[in-house]
Parts: sequence; C-alpha cells; structure tokens
Amino acid sequence: MWNFETTLRWTSGTTGAAGCPGKPDVTVSAPPEFGGEAGRWTPEDLLVSAIESCLMMTTLNVAQRQKLELKGYASKATGRMEKTAEGLRFSGVEVAIEVTVSDPALADKAVKTVQIAEKYCPVSNGVKFPVHVVATAKVG
Amino acid sequence: MWNFETTLRWTSGTTGAAGCPGKPDVTVSAPPEFGGEAGRWTPEDLLVSAIESCLMMTTLNVAQRQKLELKGYASKATGRMEKTAEGLRFSGVEVAIEVTVSDPALADKAVKTVQIAEKYCPVSNGVKFPVHVVATAKVG
Repeated sequence: MWNFETTLRWTSGTTGAAGCPGKPDVTVSAPPEFGGEAGRWTPEDLLVSAIESCLMMTTLNVAQRQKLELKGYASKATGRMEKTAEGLRFSGVEVAIEVTVSDPALADKAVKTVQIAEKYCPVSNGVKFPVHVVATAKVG
Repeated sequence: MWNFETTLRWTSGTTGAAGCPGKPDVTVSAPPEFGGEAGRWTPEDLLVSAIESCLMMTTLNVAQRQKLELKGYASKATGRMEKTAEGLRFSGVEVAIEVTVSDPALADKAVKTVQIAEKYCPVSNGVKFPVHVVATAKVG
C-alpha cells in the first residue's frame, strides 16, 4: 500500500497554497469563470494533469519492461465539465499522446505500449468519466 | 460546458514538465518507490490535491451563498493506492478539513457548509473510490 499526502491552506479570495511534504507549493485558485484568480492552476486542471501525467509514467514503465526505447513523449489533454442536475460534473477527458521512436518499424509497438499503459494507469482508472486516449508515433 | 487544458512534456528519466496555458509549469515525476525523482509532485499527489482543493473552492462558494464568513480554511489529505489483480488502484482518499469562524455559534453551520460542499464538489464526485471528509470548526 502507498500513501500520498497533500496539504492545503487558504490564503485569500478563492486562492490557496497546495502543498506536498518536501515539494514546492503550487498556488491554486478557482477557475476565473467561478471567481478565481487568472493564471493559477485550478482543481480541475490538477485533475486533468494527474490523468495526463499518470499515463506518461505508466507508458514509460511499460516501455522499459518491453525494452522499447522512446526518444520523446509529449501530450495535450482536455477535460470537459458540465452542469448537471447534481451540480458540476466531469463528462470526459481526451488525451492526445505523441511518442517518438528512432525507427519507423517501432511505431506500432510504441502506440501499443500507450494502449497497454491505459489499462494499468491508476489515475485514469480511478475516475468515473471516460478517458479517451489517442496515441500517435513519430520518428525522430 | 467548461474545458480545462493541460500539456505534458517528458524531460528525462520519469520526470516531465506539466503545463497549463498561462500558468507556471509544475515538474512531475513518478513516486521514488517507482523510480521517480524525490521532491517532485507525482500524478498521485496531483489527484489527491485536486480533490482536496476542489473541496475548498466548493466550500468557499457554499459559504458565500449562505453568507457565512469563514476566517480560515486548512486541510490535510491522504490518498491510498493498493496493488490489485488489475494493477495499482486507488482505494480511498481521506480529507481532514479545519474551518475557522469568529463565533462559537457558527461552528455547526461551518461544518454543515463543508458537508454540503462535499455533495457538489465536481472532482471528488468524479472519482470511483470513496472520499472521506472529516470537518471540524475552530474559533479564532
């Protein structure tokens, strides 16, 4: 079993200091549409980034087990939140992942590696809404 | 509908730069137990902090609607991840919230405000595992 501990301290308005022992604080605020400070990470951003970054860590882990050398990895993610009868709810997250390999012959294996990671990623498997991953491989 | 966009770029090892347009990057890494760099936010930390900070934003919003003036808000959260037959999975997050009010007569209302926020918080309602909130009010 693994524990992950975080802290939060309200500073002013809807802004606070999100902490994690031994790690730099992240200033968080509500989205500007909900009265928050612009230019700050929101809880919704953190959730989308948690999914996106967990997919990367899991992909790197699967690639290492498969002895697949990746030359690069980058992604973009978009989370969608909607108004429902129960309040605001996430309806889905899309993640576009581009992995780079040195040889065109490895492109298919690289895409499959991301697909395997999707099945194991603890964060994307921890959410109720669909996480849709589109993986592409480029040679470089 | 609201969209939340994030980006991620692998830098080295299991470390990457998590981005959000117009906001400072956050360096993310795998947990040290999984080969990551110590002192970095992990995807698991981001998930726990997303839940924790969304509960704060929602509480502040409910308090405002109820014309309850809060003097302070701080919390600690712990996420638990376990090995299962399907891979690593979150089994729960505990959030201990302490709100500060100026008058002892407002303590119960403050605790109820957090309980209402729990029902509306989009992030904690977006996860499959239980989020257990314990709210206390202090006077100060």
